[in-house]
Amino acid sequence: MARSRSNTQRHPRPAGLKVWPSAAKAGCAPGTLVYVGENEASETLATLIEYGEGENDYRETTFASLEKGRTFEPLYQTQWLNLHGLGNVDLLQLVGERFHLHPLVLEDILNTGQRPKVDVYPRYLFITTRLVHVSPEGEIGSEQICIILGAHYVLTIQEKPTGTFNSIRDSLKSTQAQIRKLGADYLVYALLDKLVDRYFSVLEVLGECIETLEEEISTGPKPEHLHRIQNLRRTLHYLKRGLWPLREVINTLQRDEADRFHPETQLYLRDVYDHTIQLIESVETLRDLVSGLQDTYLSLQTHHTNMQMRMLTAITTVFMPLTLIAGIYGMNFKFIPELEWHWGFYAVLGAMLVIGSSLGLYFRRRKWF
Amino acid sequence: MARSRSNTQRHPRPAGLKVWPSAAKAGCAPGTLVYVGENEASETLATLIEYGEGENDYRETTFASLEKGRTFEPLYQTQWLNLHGLGNVDLLQLVGERFHLHPLVLEDILNTGQRPKVDVYPRYLFITTRLVHVSPEGEIGSEQICIILGAHYVLTIQEKPTGTFNSIRDSLKSTQAQIRKLGADYLVYALLDKLVDRYFSVLEVLGECIETLEEEISTGPKPEHLHRIQNLRRTLHYLKRGLWPLREVINTLQRDEADRFHPETQLYLRDVYDHTIQLIESVETLRDLVSGLQDTYLSLQTHHTNMQMRMLTAITTVFMPLTLIAGIYGMNFKFIPELEWHWGFYAVLGAMLVIGSSLGLYFRRRKWF
Amino acid sequence: MARSRSNTQRHPRPAGLKVWPSAAKAGCAPGTLVYVGENEASETLATLIEYGEGENDYRETTFASLEKGRTFEPLYQTQWLNLHGLGNVDLLQLVGERFHLHPLVLEDILNTGQRPKVDVYPRYLFITTRLVHVSPEGEIGSEQICIILGAHYVLTIQEKPTGTFNSIRDSLKSTQAQIRKLGADYLVYALLDKLVDRYFSVLEVLGECIETLEEEISTGPKPEHLHRIQNLRRTLHYLKRGLWPLREVINTLQRDEADRFHPETQLYLRDVYDHTIQLIESVETLRDLVSGLQDTYLSLQTHHTNMQMRMLTAITTVFMPLTLIAGIYGMNFKFIPELEWHWGFYAVLGAMLVIGSSLGLYFRRRKWF
Amino acid sequence: MARSRSNTQRHPRPAGLKVWPSAAKAGCAPGTLVYVGENEASETLATLIEYGEGENDYRETTFASLEKGRTFEPLYQTQWLNLHGLGNVDLLQLVGERFHLHPLVLEDILNTGQRPKVDVYPRYLFITTRLVHVSPEGEIGSEQICIILGAHYVLTIQEKPTGTFNSIRDSLKSTQAQIRKLGADYLVYALLDKLVDRYFSVLEVLGECIETLEEEISTGPKPEHLHRIQNLRRTLHYLKRGLWPLREVINTLQRDEADRFHPETQLYLRDVYDHTIQLIESVETLRDLVSGLQDTYLSLQTHHTNMQMRMLTAITTVFMPLTLIAGIYGMNFKFIPELEWHWGFYAVLGAMLVIGSSLGLYFRRRKWF
Amino acid sequence: MARSRSNTQRHPRPAGLKVWPSAAKAGCAPGTLVYVGENEASETLATLIEYGEGENDYRETTFASLEKGRTFEPLYQTQWLNLHGLGNVDLLQLVGERFHLHPLVLEDILNTGQRPKVDVYPRYLFITTRLVHVSPEGEIGSEQICIILGAHYVLTIQEKPTGTFNSIRDSLKSTQAQIRKLGADYLVYALLDKLVDRYFSVLEVLGECIETLEEEISTGPKPEHLHRIQNLRRTLHYLKRGLWPLREVINTLQRDEADRFHPETQLYLRDVYDHTIQLIESVETLRDLVSGLQDTYLSLQTHHTNMQMRMLTAITTVFMPLTLIAGIYGMNFKFIPELEWHWGFYAVLGAMLVIGSSLGLYFRRRKWF
Repeated sequence: MARSRSNTQRHPRPAGLKVWPSAAKAGCAPGTLVYVGENEASETLATLIEYGEGENDYRETTFASLEKGRTFEPLYQTQWLNLHGLGNVDLLQLVGERFHLHPLVLEDILNTGQRPKVDVYPRYLFITTRLVHVSPEGEIGSEQICIILGAHYVLTIQEKPTGTFNSIRDSLKSTQAQIRKLGADYLVYALLDKLVDRYFSVLEVLGECIETLEEEISTGPKPEHLHRIQNLRRTLHYLKRGLWPLREVINTLQRDEADRFHPETQLYLRDVYDHTIQLIESVETLRDLVSGLQDTYLSLQTHHTNMQMRMLTAITTVFMPLTLIAGIYGMNFKFIPELEWHWGFYAVLGAMLVIGSSLGLYFRRRKWF
Repeated sequence: MARSRSNTQRHPRPAGLKVWPSAAKAGCAPGTLVYVGENEASETLATLIEYGEGENDYRETTFASLEKGRTFEPLYQTQWLNLHGLGNVDLLQLVGERFHLHPLVLEDILNTGQRPKVDVYPRYLFITTRLVHVSPEGEIGSEQICIILGAHYVLTIQEKPTGTFNSIRDSLKSTQAQIRKLGADYLVYALLDKLVDRYFSVLEVLGECIETLEEEISTGPKPEHLHRIQNLRRTLHYLKRGLWPLREVINTLQRDEADRFHPETQLYLRDVYDHTIQLIESVETLRDLVSGLQDTYLSLQTHHTNMQMRMLTAITTVFMPLTLIAGIYGMNFKFIPELEWHWGFYAVLGAMLVIGSSLGLYFRRRKWF
Repeated sequence: MARSRSNTQRHPRPAGLKVWPSAAKAGCAPGTLVYVGENEASETLATLIEYGEGENDYRETTFASLEKGRTFEPLYQTQWLNLHGLGNVDLLQLVGERFHLHPLVLEDILNTGQRPKVDVYPRYLFITTRLVHVSPEGEIGSEQICIILGAHYVLTIQEKPTGTFNSIRDSLKSTQAQIRKLGADYLVYALLDKLVDRYFSVLEVLGECIETLEEEISTGPKPEHLHRIQNLRRTLHYLKRGLWPLREVINTLQRDEADRFHPETQLYLRDVYDHTIQLIESVETLRDLVSGLQDTYLSLQTHHTNMQMRMLTAITTVFMPLTLIAGIYGMNFKFIPELEWHWGFYAVLGAMLVIGSSLGLYFRRRKWF
Repeated sequence: MARSRSNTQRHPRPAGLKVWPSAAKAGCAPGTLVYVGENEASETLATLIEYGEGENDYRETTFASLEKGRTFEPLYQTQWLNLHGLGNVDLLQLVGERFHLHPLVLEDILNTGQRPKVDVYPRYLFITTRLVHVSPEGEIGSEQICIILGAHYVLTIQEKPTGTFNSIRDSLKSTQAQIRKLGADYLVYALLDKLVDRYFSVLEVLGECIETLEEEISTGPKPEHLHRIQNLRRTLHYLKRGLWPLREVINTLQRDEADRFHPETQLYLRDVYDHTIQLIESVETLRDLVSGLQDTYLSLQTHHTNMQMRMLTAITTVFMPLTLIAGIYGMNFKFIPELEWHWGFYAVLGAMLVIGSSLGLYFRRRKWF
Repeated sequence: MARSRSNTQRHPRPAGLKVWPSAAKAGCAPGTLVYVGENEASETLATLIEYGEGENDYRETTFASLEKGRTFEPLYQTQWLNLHGLGNVDLLQLVGERFHLHPLVLEDILNTGQRPKVDVYPRYLFITTRLVHVSPEGEIGSEQICIILGAHYVLTIQEKPTGTFNSIRDSLKSTQAQIRKLGADYLVYALLDKLVDRYFSVLEVLGECIETLEEEISTGPKPEHLHRIQNLRRTLHYLKRGLWPLREVINTLQRDEADRFHPETQLYLRDVYDHTIQLIESVETLRDLVSGLQDTYLSLQTHHTNMQMRMLTAITTVFMPLTLIAGIYGMNFKFIPELEWHWGFYAVLGAMLVIGSSLGLYFRRRKWF
């Protein structure tokens, strides 16, 4: 079976230039599982957290081989199985069999360039989202995170360990946490909330980038700024493409799949939903600002070059009358009385100085130099 | 529990540059109440106003400590409890308990960067809005105001005392006022009406700013104007982001929550709704004008520089033939009859004067100087 | 009660600059009636027209004082009460009482900066519209006209007498007119039809303005044109803001309030509705043309200045070789044979002439002069 | 009764400049029939075609006077009455009476600037459309064509004879044509199909215009092109305003009035509907191309002028060092050894030649000349 | 019967310039079948594939003449008849009769410029789509592919053999393939999936084109780039016009025609639907990038020309003072002491060198040369 687009893996592009989140596997026939993400497919590591309402109802197990996974029996009310890395396709397939996941779900998990979406299956919800992160230099990256919400379990599959959900695990450990009392649906809310929060910090970094850029441009526009503006525009487009479907996902959970969520959890979902709206508006504002920035850049650049041209032309203009005077007294007429004067030369030099400096002062007062 | 975004408080930005109304607390886990606004969390001050239809049915009580609040018993039909300042989290928590407010409500009250919204809870409506104000210099600021409408009470929580609602309190004191006869829902209308009114005065100031700027630009565009245009655009974007959700809020009150409002009050709500539509249209008009202003600025700036360049080049052009003439009579040919003439020098000077001044006049008539 | 925005009356702006139709009174508390329009509040004058199907069933009464109004008794089937001027608030209040108008209706009538809208009250419809007019110089103005449709009566309230409805009164006088046979609802249609018609003539004037401007710009763009383009854009924005809600109004009458209109009148309403759609499309076309006009202006202005700069630079270029020749024969070399020739000077002058004029001709052929 | 806008006829504008399809009559009171189109109201000519399923069931009658029309009796199953020219208002009125047409229908027929629409009357459908045509020079024109579909008859009213429907008449004459077997509703489909087809040929002509213009601009942009771009934009806007409502019309026929059309005819209507969608998309594409063309024009024009300015400035720059050399050897120093050399003059001339031509070559290699 | 638009075939345009997918046949009367595509109407070749669930239930038959086709009897459960080339209209007509296809369907098949759509007929679905392909040089082309889904058969009609569906045929041959077990509806999904996949590779090529172009422009913008930008924009517009209706098609299949698809197949259709959404978003991103590219091009081109002009003007400015000095010492004053000095000439030359080179260094330090 031909795999026409599998060459995408071979020349991965830098995050800033990616036109669409790598949708590489799309061309394969259903039924074959291949990992098509851009990150090195690291070793898969499974962490199982079981918890219940009771004070000590918490157990955390980590296993990498299949045998251990097979002999496993659930202990407490809610299970959260977290998989890191997508290299071990066999383990994933085993998990898929055990949780009765549809082949399309497994395919989507491995094909890490998915658009955020929620797919409804009779026995579980399959949520695909992206985790964005930003380096201190303003480089935006993102990874796919899949969440599967079953009756009493949550499955999360990440491309590589990021530590994003550590705080959730910590709060699960503490005895009185609300999250221990509410079930698997509340855990899904907490995960989504974390993912949405990451967008806020990314936007904050971008907002600062824009401000810095704005200041730099107003002191002196350079062609390099144009490149950075284009990059910012691309990054914001990228974020927008992640946020709009995320909003849809949470809206779907809230409206169409309301019966899978406890009324109390629904209130929290509504809160996350409000945050995504706020994020979308922020992205739109930033896009507007970047677009205005480009206009400012163009206007200021033209202004700067025009100022320089005006200065040069003004200098030329200052010299024109002086050269004319020199030319006049260089004429070979027989009777030019001034030529006979003893101080004539110095008088003319003085006149030149006066004319030149007064023109120069005039132009300087108009701020043309 | 990590509070990843709590550093927002540490370097607050000026109002004009804020990209989104400080949504700082968003990253916290639910259940912990921290004030995350940008204003200094001032001491909380509670004012309780009770009133009924009767002539003397009006009582106003102010209390800051918890003990007094605890022993309080309602006297008249409608209660309006107004809280100033969000520093006293404990008092707020007490109020929350007494009015059975959901933890998310308390969180939203303290997290003062909320988008205007209305959240429906079984026993009360929770409305988040923003109060905009403008300094005489055209600086726009805004504060969060939360309104909770219960069966017979209204709760308003402001970041700091602004005196916006003083006129409502005054009209509550007067015996024959309509507001005394209608219940808590009419009070909410009156509060919203006040908030919407503030937008009108802000837009008026902005409209004047734009006119002033337009006049200044048409007399002589400067790079500084570009900066002011960019600022105006940002401010209008900011207002738009406050007004659109406010329209939604009032629409929701009017349509989905109509049963909480007396038919008479509904008519008034419809009136406020019309005002928000009018405001949104005004903002759009102003945005259009600002956008046209930028085009005008760019066009005029280019025009100005071009005029100056044309002037300088025209001056250069005037000197060209004169220099040539001087050069011609500076040639060393043996037989140039004019050189022998006694008045030749003066004739040539005169010719130069004629040529130069006629060229100059020609350019001046075409308004190139 | 503070009237924060009542200062709008004090400095009224010219029609062309108004950002939103003066929404001055918006800030007042309900219940106080003050006229807040921009026109001098002229004396109120009431005209009552009563008519029925019969041949002589027509009576017209004019009265200004309250007493006469009080003793009045309806005679024929349909009453049309037209009020001119809003200075006499007392009379208006009396009318309001007699027709049981809601306080909000009276407030909207006096607050003449309303957005066109229709408010549904149990016993009547309250329609707010604007009458646009255009001076021969292309100045656009507008006035608020309120129409109240009751069971058997129509109330119209205008800011000042405009004579717009004279033709309707004339047709009411004629015995066989269809308008006499159909009731109050048809009268409302006739009034709305008149108001919509006015927009057609305004758009025609604007269309001619644009054509004139286009021709002027193509002959020679001036900065003043930019100002006129900006004004046209503003005027069209203003018209658009009047037309969109008018369309809504007529749509509401046609759909939601269909039971208040005779099936025959509904056909006519549909016709007016089609006209408003046509008007909106025309405004959009004109907006598009104006936007294209600005691009044309900018392009032509740049083109013109560039042509002039090119001409000046070409002139300079023509003089360069001539000056060089003069310089060459001005050198002090001992052995320059040409200098000895008797006709050398004239030969060089001739060569200069040939070079200069051929360069000049070359540039002229390329249309650079 | 005042006819405020009837002056539109007096100064008809060229088709390319018309802002909205002449909506002249709009201002008249309903009930008076006046022809307000822009074409000379030619003599009305009525052609009646009757046909049925049988082999010889076809009769064509032409009559211009009223008497003949009165005595007419239908013969076959389906009647198609086609009226050319709108000069004979009386005949039209007679037809209106005979077919029980509403006064508004007759008014819309005579007022030839209508927007395409479909009006539903209990006993017939009234469809207003426009027939577009294009001259070989790319001039777009349009005429109003009204179609009335009754139970067993179709009425078509055209401003003037165009021959558009000749092919339909021809196919009606042929015995085996499908059109003979299907009723009046299929005839309406065939008429609409013809009208939609005309748009395809118009768009084809415009598409070629754009391509030609694009080529011309890329060889050398001229201000005249800007004018043609603006005209194309206007024409496309005009077509768009004809097509969008036409799509609505056919959609309404297909959905809301489906019961007036045979299921077989509905399939054909769906086909026409698809064609209008295709047309609308084509217009949008052309609009996009024209808009891109303007950008290209501006960019290339600026580029061209800049090239010329660069060339002129480069020429000036070539002469600068030469003039300096001439100046240097024109100085009057006593001891300039070169001046004494016999070949000094020629050496300097040679040096000038070398310097000038090498500079010239350098600039030419950079393609600045 | 006139075929007004059949001349489109005669001058086919290159794919890049086509304004709308050749909708040539639109003008013909229904009932006449003519092939109106742009590709040479190659010989029609029919391939019939029959398959069932059983291990050997696969048969492939190829026939070109009518007789063989007539005597054919179905063998296994599902039939897939694939037709290549549209030259043999008779065979197509025969197929049309055998499968009871509506005349409009046959017309649409031959008229290869259709917009993607799905037409619902009682006994089958008629799906029109386009197969896009891209040459290594970035030339985009497309062909129409029609799919008819009946109860147990699938008909595919392609303009010419492309080999796109070979992989599907291969997987049909393999015994255990899922596709063998699921029926005709799953086959339609597989075909659509292939078509959608092709868009991904096309977009990938375009994405690389844009990146290459971006790099080239940033090193040095040339007018030729503008042409390529305009072409890219056109291509993306073209893709958009293919993708939006394709999304609609799949949505219609999924929602309105859900009963024709097995629940299992519906899951797969939903997957394809998600892919089209992703494609549409990618096209929008690319369009945005191209639009930004044009701005970058314009800005950089202006910047480059400005730099060159600045350099030339700076050179001129360097020579001005030198020429003045030469002029000064060329004056004929009697008493200019320097002229008498023996080294005066060399001193002045040295001074010129110092002035000129220091000015030159100054300008070079500011990077003006």
